[in-house]
Amino acid sequence: MAVYTEVTDEAVQAFAAQYDLGDVLSLKGIAEGVENSNFLMVTTRGPFILTLYEKRVSETDLPFFIGVMRHLAERGIACPLPLPGRDGVVLRRLADRPAAIVSFLEGMWPRRIQPRHCAALGAGLAAMHLAGADFAMRRVNDLSVSGWRPLLQRSEDRAHEVRPELAESLDAELLYLESHWPEDLPAGLIHADLFPDNVFFKGESLSGFIDFYFSCTDFFAYDLAVCLNAWCFEPDGQFNVTKARLMLSNYRKVRPVCPRELEVLPLLARGAALRFLLTRLYDWLHHPEGALVKPKDPLEYWSKLRFHQEVQSPGAYGLEP
Amino acid sequence: MAVYTEVTDEAVQAFAAQYDLGDVLSLKGIAEGVENSNFLMVTTRGPFILTLYEKRVSETDLPFFIGVMRHLAERGIACPLPLPGRDGVVLRRLADRPAAIVSFLEGMWPRRIQPRHCAALGAGLAAMHLAGADFAMRRVNDLSVSGWRPLLQRSEDRAHEVRPELAESLDAELLYLESHWPEDLPAGLIHADLFPDNVFFKGESLSGFIDFYFSCTDFFAYDLAVCLNAWCFEPDGQFNVTKARLMLSNYRKVRPVCPRELEVLPLLARGAALRFLLTRLYDWLHHPEGALVKPKDPLEYWSKLRFHQEVQSPGAYGLEP
Repeated sequence: MAVYTEVTDEAVQAFAAQYDLGDVLSLKGIAEGVENSNFLMVTTRGPFILTLYEKRVSETDLPFFIGVMRHLAERGIACPLPLPGRDGVVLRRLADRPAAIVSFLEGMWPRRIQPRHCAALGAGLAAMHLAGADFAMRRVNDLSVSGWRPLLQRSEDRAHEVRPELAESLDAELLYLESHWPEDLPAGLIHADLFPDNVFFKGESLSGFIDFYFSCTDFFAYDLAVCLNAWCFEPDGQFNVTKARLMLSNYRKVRPVCPRELEVLPLLARGAALRFLLTRLYDWLHHPEGALVKPKDPLEYWSKLRFHQEVQSPGAYGLEP
Repeated sequence: MAVYTEVTDEAVQAFAAQYDLGDVLSLKGIAEGVENSNFLMVTTRGPFILTLYEKRVSETDLPFFIGVMRHLAERGIACPLPLPGRDGVVLRRLADRPAAIVSFLEGMWPRRIQPRHCAALGAGLAAMHLAGADFAMRRVNDLSVSGWRPLLQRSEDRAHEVRPELAESLDAELLYLESHWPEDLPAGLIHADLFPDNVFFKGESLSGFIDFYFSCTDFFAYDLAVCLNAWCFEPDGQFNVTKARLMLSNYRKVRPVCPRELEVLPLLARGAALRFLLTRLYDWLHHPEGALVKPKDPLEYWSKLRFHQEVQSPGAYGLEP
């Protein structure tokens, strides 16, 4: 939950007056999202989302993220559409921060993941990957393998507070991943943070994706690896192979995957687990006293990492070769 | 900012199906309000507010609060209107908590108080007091003078952590208020918590009142005393007599006040300052480590209390006798 920045009503009125969106009737901070300040702005033309970009999102990356949403929305992938003002400008400033208005996306994210959600996610993710194929902008994934060692180094002296010998175990895992990470997989635009709270459903159907603020150019299969971690474990930590099989098989119906992508999926899943473990570990050890955002438990991803380390073949994810 | 309770999408759909409000398109937690969990629910019929009542609001008081909003709304005082389901029931349960849907109120609360806000507030508050005159239900103000000593006792052993000798000063103030508190003022339905974030404006006009979860039966002038504290001090602590004069004079144009109400206004303002000082002091000393709600500074109300202690006559509030 996060509204980091307070905006005065006068400033919002003046900001919205630069758009053809009617009069602002209401502005309410949304208690979701941890990177930015999001407001639901109701105008005489309906609901919109106003986002103020906080420090964790690099300002130089914003044109990429705005470009991603616009590109995907134009190709029929439901996601927030960044709205230009009457001057054609999408990204401007409000309360001393970069700010944009995006369209309101209907739907709710699933609080209890059902197998049908995973099936729809697989097909939707593949469609997103295909739609991104002709996106011209590129952005390096700074939270992939080359970014993990610096991240570990910022936490390793205190990692034992979370679990004995955690730093040593993570160092060994990282050495393994660094020497085995693939270089030659099909790549393109990926979301890279596709947790359930970033995927909306309306009834049975997936109604759209939000929060593209980690999107980047990387292996398509890495997005699948993130989703395996985020969608296919039960709250008690058990891996649900039915959910994984539905997700992967529906993905493959839309975008065929090559044998090499399947083969390295366990490795990518270990990498994705380590990535979220490392950022959560850092936030856990470094969150300021009395912060408004409660850090997430890094050990959830320790147990997911352990699961993937034991996986012998992609068959463990319900895949037929 | 507060969403204490997570609700599953399935539970919300089932809940909303009991109303004639169309299909739920979206549900977003609102990062405002500290007592309850509030969600902005957009349906095919437009936006609504879904409130889950958390522990701090006593369940036995809910019919009173719901009754207040309904009564005032029926008499043209803009406030959220509690909506009955098809069965006529307003108050039901969701996620194991009492829950209600209320109408969406347009407007924004003023982040920077201007004199014109205080003028509109005075007239609006008086209209609310008049509209409540024939409200049949009654509720004792458990945060008035008889409730303050027990509240002080829960904090006095640690009050010195906030300011040296604070407990002793508050005890002396309380003794004075207990022996001088009036018993014979015009009374009726009051809001009792009319801070700026509970009053919405649309352009120049006051568009409504929200958050009636402290409303009760008490002196009308006590509501004015709360507003003097909450609206008429500048962020630097200075009292703004122009704002006070506008608020009080516009109140008097709508509901004439008797000489006795004017005379005791400084005393009531001391009491109102002490009431918020005591609840803030308690929250400050007792908020759990890592709580999501940041407690408000009790010393802001210490300085307001000191101001009112120096007031010799209602003239200090810009009033002509």
